[in-house]
Amino acid sequence: MAFIGAGLAIIGAAIGAGYGNSKVIAQTIESMARQPEMSGQLRSMMILGIAFIEALPILGIVIALLMIL
Amino acid sequence: MAFIGAGLAIIGAAIGAGYGNSKVIAQTIESMARQPEMSGQLRSMMILGIAFIEALPILGIVIALLMIL
Amino acid sequence: MAFIGAGLAIIGAAIGAGYGNSKVIAQTIESMARQPEMSGQLRSMMILGIAFIEALPILGIVIALLMIL
Amino acid sequence: MAFIGAGLAIIGAAIGAGYGNSKVIAQTIESMARQPEMSGQLRSMMILGIAFIEALPILGIVIALLMIL
Amino acid sequence: MAFIGAGLAIIGAAIGAGYGNSKVIAQTIESMARQPEMSGQLRSMMILGIAFIEALPILGIVIALLMIL
Amino acid sequence: MAFIGAGLAIIGAAIGAGYGNSKVIAQTIESMARQPEMSGQLRSMMILGIAFIEALPILGIVIALLMIL
Amino acid sequence: MAFIGAGLAIIGAAIGAGYGNSKVIAQTIESMARQPEMSGQLRSMMILGIAFIEALPILGIVIALLMIL
Amino acid sequence: MAFIGAGLAIIGAAIGAGYGNSKVIAQTIESMARQPEMSGQLRSMMILGIAFIEALPILGIVIALLMIL
Amino acid sequence: MAFIGAGLAIIGAAIGAGYGNSKVIAQTIESMARQPEMSGQLRSMMILGIAFIEALPILGIVIALLMIL
Amino acid sequence: MAFIGAGLAIIGAAIGAGYGNSKVIAQTIESMARQPEMSGQLRSMMILGIAFIEALPILGIVIALLMIL
Amino acid sequence: MAFIGAGLAIIGAAIGAGYGNSKVIAQTIESMARQPEMSGQLRSMMILGIAFIEALPILGIVIALLMIL
Amino acid sequence: MAFIGAGLAIIGAAIGAGYGNSKVIAQTIESMARQPEMSGQLRSMMILGIAFIEALPILGIVIALLMIL
Amino acid sequence: MAFIGAGLAIIGAAIGAGYGNSKVIAQTIESMARQPEMSGQLRSMMILGIAFIEALPILGIVIALLMIL
Amino acid sequence: MAFIGAGLAIIGAAIGAGYGNSKVIAQTIESMARQPEMSGQLRSMMILGIAFIEALPILGIVIALLMIL
Repeated sequence: MAFIGAGLAIIGAAIGAGYGNSKVIAQTIESMARQPEMSGQLRSMMILGIAFIEALPILGIVIALLMIL
Repeated sequence: MAFIGAGLAIIGAAIGAGYGNSKVIAQTIESMARQPEMSGQLRSMMILGIAFIEALPILGIVIALLMIL
Repeated sequence: MAFIGAGLAIIGAAIGAGYGNSKVIAQTIESMARQPEMSGQLRSMMILGIAFIEALPILGIVIALLMIL
Repeated sequence: MAFIGAGLAIIGAAIGAGYGNSKVIAQTIESMARQPEMSGQLRSMMILGIAFIEALPILGIVIALLMIL
Repeated sequence: MAFIGAGLAIIGAAIGAGYGNSKVIAQTIESMARQPEMSGQLRSMMILGIAFIEALPILGIVIALLMIL
Repeated sequence: MAFIGAGLAIIGAAIGAGYGNSKVIAQTIESMARQPEMSGQLRSMMILGIAFIEALPILGIVIALLMIL
Repeated sequence: MAFIGAGLAIIGAAIGAGYGNSKVIAQTIESMARQPEMSGQLRSMMILGIAFIEALPILGIVIALLMIL
Repeated sequence: MAFIGAGLAIIGAAIGAGYGNSKVIAQTIESMARQPEMSGQLRSMMILGIAFIEALPILGIVIALLMIL
Repeated sequence: MAFIGAGLAIIGAAIGAGYGNSKVIAQTIESMARQPEMSGQLRSMMILGIAFIEALPILGIVIALLMIL
Repeated sequence: MAFIGAGLAIIGAAIGAGYGNSKVIAQTIESMARQPEMSGQLRSMMILGIAFIEALPILGIVIALLMIL
Repeated sequence: MAFIGAGLAIIGAAIGAGYGNSKVIAQTIESMARQPEMSGQLRSMMILGIAFIEALPILGIVIALLMIL
Repeated sequence: MAFIGAGLAIIGAAIGAGYGNSKVIAQTIESMARQPEMSGQLRSMMILGIAFIEALPILGIVIALLMIL
Repeated sequence: MAFIGAGLAIIGAAIGAGYGNSKVIAQTIESMARQPEMSGQLRSMMILGIAFIEALPILGIVIALLMIL
Repeated sequence: MAFIGAGLAIIGAAIGAGYGNSKVIAQTIESMARQPEMSGQLRSMMILGIAFIEALPILGIVIALLMIL
């Protein structure tokens, strides 16, 4: 049972992070291409956002590791 | 059974946080690129919003940890 | 069985809160960027809305805690 | 079985309330940003709407509590 | 089995009512913000519509209560 | 088994009625806000439509009651 | 098993009728608000359409009744 | 097993007929409201189309009846 | 098992035919309302298309009949 | 088991053929109504396309027949 | 088990081929109706594309045949 | 079990290849109809893309063959 | 069990690669048709992107092979 | 059980990475085709984004490897 639980956890973590990160990064690239003079500010904003988004999936991955070990 | 329950909880937490955070951050970056003079106000607004959104998934992660320990 | 029930409850709570909150906050940020002079009124409106939206998921989290303890 | 039933009930209640409330609140914030002079009327309308929407999910939460106690 | 049946019934009732009510209320708020002079007529229309929409979910909640008692 | 069958029936009835009614009522409110002079005719049309839509879900609710009694 | 079969049948009948009827009625109300002079013809058309749409779900309801009696 | 099979058959028949008929009828009403002079031709076309669409669901209903009798 | 297989087959046949036919017929009615002078050619095209679309679902219905007899 | 497999095969065949054929035929009818002078060429193109689309579902139907005989 | 596996394989093959072929053919017909002078080049392109798309579903059908024989 | 696994693998391979190839080919045909002078370059690009897309589904098909032999 | 796990892995790998690659290649072809003078730069960009996208599905395929051998 | 868990993990990792990477790369290619003078900055941004997106799926793949070894 622990393996299936870990598999479910990885599904959630990978899809959640993939969806969330790609949306933020794609939006940043689009905005940066329009206002190149703001690229520094937007990139730091993006790093801040990714940190918030990846916090939970990484916790989920850690829990999945705890399950199967 | 506890492992599957924890896996389901991580799915919900990671996808909910990934969807919610990315929507708010992408909207903030788009608005900030249009009105650079408001970037301070929008960023503080974004941090406030992320705090509300991540409250529940982090609770869910904690409960998932309680389950498997 | 209690663990799976709690897992299902956390899925609902985290996704419901993530979807609802992000929609309200993103709309607030977009409107605030257009009418900066209304930002105070919109922020208080947003806090009011988030309070209504998070009421039920937090109840759900509490029930999930009751289940596994 | 009671725990799974309660979990299903919380899924329905949290997602239903999250979807419904966020749609109404986001619409109210958008309309209020366009017609600031109507903000009082729109807010009272929103509170009325939220009351109708949250009536059923709260009943569902109560029934979920009845199930597991 | 009765608990799962009740859980399914609450899912249907809460999501059906949440979707239906929010659509009607959001439409009413949007229309009211455009034609403020018709707000009385639209509000009474909305109450009438909500009454029709909530009739069935409330019946479903009652049946869910019958199941678990 | 009867309880799960009734739960499924309530899901169908509540979601079917919630979707159908809200679509008709929202359309009526939108049209009424555009042509206020036709509001009487549109409202009677809406009542007629709701009667047709709610006929089947109410039958389903009755059958769900028959199942669990 | 008969109860679950009847529950599935009611799901199909209620959602099919709710979707189909609401689409036709909403279209009729929209068209009627644009061409008020054609409202008689459109209403008779709508009644004809609803008769065709509701034929199958009502048969399904009858079969569901046959199952559980 | 026969009852579940019949329930599945009714789901397919009711949803297929509800979706198909409503699409054709709504399109007919929209086109008729634009070109009132073609309403006779469009109505006969619609009846022809409904006959083709309802042929298979009615066969499915008949087979569902065969199953449970 | 044969009954469930037949039920699945009817779901596929009815939904496939309902979706396919309604798309073709609705497109034909829309095009016919725009170019009334081509209605003969379009109708014959529609009949030809429906024949191709209904060929497989009718085969499926026949196989479903073979299963339960 | 063979019956369920055949049922699954018919679902795939009927929905795949219904979706594919209707898309091609509806596109052909729309294009033909715009350029009536190309109707011969478009119709022969459509027949060619339908032949390619229906090749696989018919093979699937044949395999479903092999299963239950 | 072999029959269910074959059924699943046919679902994938028929839906994949139906979706892919119809998208390519519909696009070809639309483009051909706009630029009739390129119809030869587009048709040969379409045949080439269909060959690539149908390669895998036909392999899947062959494997399904291997399973049940 | 091997047959079901092979069936699942064929579903993934056929749908993945059908979706991916059709998207690339339809885009190529549309672009080629707009810029006929670039058709050679676009076709070679398309062949390159299809090779990348079909690499994985063909591997999946081969693994499915390994499973059932 | 190993076969079903491998089947699930192939579903993920083939669909993920098919979706990801086709999106990148279609975007490249569209951009290349608009700016033919940038086709070299875009093609190298595309190859780079495909390498990143296919890295994980190929790992998945390898793991699926490990499972069934 | 370990194999199914690994299969689920690969589904999540491959689809999450495929979706996320393709969205970022397609956006980069589109922006680069519009502002060729920014292509260096956008490419480095893209590599940064891909690194964040692929972090979690690669962890998932590693965990899947741990499961089956």
